[in-house]
Amino acid sequence: PPAWGRAARQPPGLPLATCRAFSKNKILVEMDERSGTGGGVATMKFKSPPVNSLSLDFLTEFSIGLEKLENNRACRGVILTSAVPKIFSSGLDITEMCGKSTEHYAEFWRAVQEMWLRLYGSNMVTVAAVNGSSPAGGCLIALSCDYRIMVENPKFSIGLNEAQLGIVAPFWFKDTFVNVVGHRVAERSLQLGSLHPAPEAHRFGVVDELVPEEKLQEKAAAVMAQWLALPDHARQLTKSMMRKAVLDRLVAHREEDIQNFISFISKESIQKSLRMYMEMLKKKK
Amino acid sequence: PPAWGRAARQPPGLPLATCRAFSKNKILVEMDERSGTGGGVATMKFKSPPVNSLSLDFLTEFSIGLEKLENNRACRGVILTSAVPKIFSSGLDITEMCGKSTEHYAEFWRAVQEMWLRLYGSNMVTVAAVNGSSPAGGCLIALSCDYRIMVENPKFSIGLNEAQLGIVAPFWFKDTFVNVVGHRVAERSLQLGSLHPAPEAHRFGVVDELVPEEKLQEKAAAVMAQWLALPDHARQLTKSMMRKAVLDRLVAHREEDIQNFISFISKESIQKSLRMYMEMLKKKK
Amino acid sequence: PPAWGRAARQPPGLPLATCRAFSKNKILVEMDERSGTGGGVATMKFKSPPVNSLSLDFLTEFSIGLEKLENNRACRGVILTSAVPKIFSSGLDITEMCGKSTEHYAEFWRAVQEMWLRLYGSNMVTVAAVNGSSPAGGCLIALSCDYRIMVENPKFSIGLNEAQLGIVAPFWFKDTFVNVVGHRVAERSLQLGSLHPAPEAHRFGVVDELVPEEKLQEKAAAVMAQWLALPDHARQLTKSMMRKAVLDRLVAHREEDIQNFISFISKESIQKSLRMYMEMLKKKK
Repeated sequence: PPAWGRAARQPPGLPLATCRAFSKNKILVEMDERSGTGGGVATMKFKSPPVNSLSLDFLTEFSIGLEKLENNRACRGVILTSAVPKIFSSGLDITEMCGKSTEHYAEFWRAVQEMWLRLYGSNMVTVAAVNGSSPAGGCLIALSCDYRIMVENPKFSIGLNEAQLGIVAPFWFKDTFVNVVGHRVAERSLQLGSLHPAPEAHRFGVVDELVPEEKLQEKAAAVMAQWLALPDHARQLTKSMMRKAVLDRLVAHREEDIQNFISFISKESIQKSLRMYMEMLKKKK
Repeated sequence: PPAWGRAARQPPGLPLATCRAFSKNKILVEMDERSGTGGGVATMKFKSPPVNSLSLDFLTEFSIGLEKLENNRACRGVILTSAVPKIFSSGLDITEMCGKSTEHYAEFWRAVQEMWLRLYGSNMVTVAAVNGSSPAGGCLIALSCDYRIMVENPKFSIGLNEAQLGIVAPFWFKDTFVNVVGHRVAERSLQLGSLHPAPEAHRFGVVDELVPEEKLQEKAAAVMAQWLALPDHARQLTKSMMRKAVLDRLVAHREEDIQNFISFISKESIQKSLRMYMEMLKKKK
Repeated sequence: PPAWGRAARQPPGLPLATCRAFSKNKILVEMDERSGTGGGVATMKFKSPPVNSLSLDFLTEFSIGLEKLENNRACRGVILTSAVPKIFSSGLDITEMCGKSTEHYAEFWRAVQEMWLRLYGSNMVTVAAVNGSSPAGGCLIALSCDYRIMVENPKFSIGLNEAQLGIVAPFWFKDTFVNVVGHRVAERSLQLGSLHPAPEAHRFGVVDELVPEEKLQEKAAAVMAQWLALPDHARQLTKSMMRKAVLDRLVAHREEDIQNFISFISKESIQKSLRMYMEMLKKKK
């Protein structure tokens, strides 16, 4: 099913390999093609320091990487994790949303949508090995996987904290969150813009399981093997049945959602909030 | 958003102050306008002995009171609590539903809808400080807030117990309940007409937190401060995103819902049940 | 409400008693007509060894049995349990889905739908006393009741394990499951085709309560008495309000669902999976 618009966005004449070489900078894709346990599983490792923020380049590379794995019959599952210490992903890159053109905002938002449509609708088994903090868009990536394992360090937190920044999580972030934690937990967490420390995230169902950092990759591989023990076809149809309503909702309102984003982000009050937030981040360094 | 019909119901020529003076009898509204912690928060205290039942007068006063706070830029949050010992609110006033005219039933039901549309759709932060039992419509008021704190006394109970009285909670009571506790808990609790003692109410998610009675107001203020720490605009849009579907459903079926209520409540069998219930209540005294 | 198609399917001229005598072989219906506690409650005991599989005959007998109880004013509740040791029901009879004609598949699937429409939409109080394992369609029967009590033996398991067999649970199995355990638990459990041992089933909310085997019938009777303490009319309307959306969805897509089943089950790859599964079951014996 997930053929959403990808083909149309590929610049005509630009060979895929070029994109790939270009984008190799931000995500490391490792493929384990051994048969048996561990075979057919890819790992996508975010390595875009300092905080794996979701820039247009990162998102494009992510979508292309997922597409390539999706089309690779030898690949049945993918583990998402970070190569940057203490951070899984800090979410959408604020510099892409500040002082740019309407066209840029549209392109950026389409890339965010694209990434989610591919990941949430993936036919592969997707496991998030969350080895650091994961606010906003970083949390969305984890929520879109089939299973979430987080390092049990209470200094790492995860959540859709958009409201803290004065912005609003889009409806499909919300839909994804509600599907994971239910309406009540989502309502409270979204309104408060909560960043849940790992133990609380586990208690609220934001992540499925906590492990010590040194066990994370081993545990992710074990969970992957458990999910891959199922026949692909039945598992994929089941996954699609569970997620189709929410995926279809964005597909049906995609252009409207882009326009909403543009008009919201173009407001002077929002631009001001974002600039202040970026100043604060710079001072922190 | 919550402009639902209020203006249209205001009798032309009747100054608002008149209504207000009249209704001051049933709800005490206190406003803390200090800046800083506690500032911008109103408290609505139900003081309609013996049991804070939701009569037409009470509901009208409640809706007008909420509207005034909503339109007061200095007010960002409201705490709902009771001035009557041991009871938060006993729910809809049965005398309004017994032996009255069709016109009266219509007016009464519209006032119930109005109250819920205003409260569930409020832009303010709403915290229920439940300091007594809270059956049926009283429970609905608590469920419609952003956060529910209940006194941990197991003698106090809360729930949508309509089925016990031989009547059926309307679909929007149900929708509100499902959004708080999920489908399964709601289905079982509604079918059994359960009144959950405070500890069970907490376990099932009907309320968010239990505290000793003497800590209730302090806790409510602390929770309010936590929610008010968020930028209003982002929090309001997020709240609206979570609740819009359920609010819209009543708005779309409002007249139909009134007709349903009238034809249900006008049945001789239902009138008989309600009369018996009132007799029982009188004997209890 | 549940008048779904039953009348139309009754072969003209065939007296109901004939069907009943014929089908008495697979389900034992006992009726306790005493007034007071325990009165007005029927027990349907599955006794179709070796595993109470849901054959066309079993399903037809089940639907007719339910219909008769539904139309019996003296009957207000029904307890479902098994007379076969260690198994509640093994689910759909695979022999009905293997190497048969398109017409047979259609008839069989219509009977599965019919059973669920009657049970999930029943006006009676329905309690599942799960005294053995209950995979797939057996689990659906339990999920469709108002309350589920399971023997606490961890050797007994329950779940919608269709994916393990290479097939996909239909959308209305999924809807029923989501209504009981919520979206997240359902998504994970369906994708993994999990068979939950009793303690895990309880933890995930698949069943409401665990009891020692010797207490099962007593507990089922006590739960039934609790639910029957409510006025029938209000309880029935409340139940219908909670379940109507999901029931209506199958009613609206019934023929389409049958066609989907036929085209899915007719695939050579699926037939092969099912034959292999049956071979495996035979060897187990």
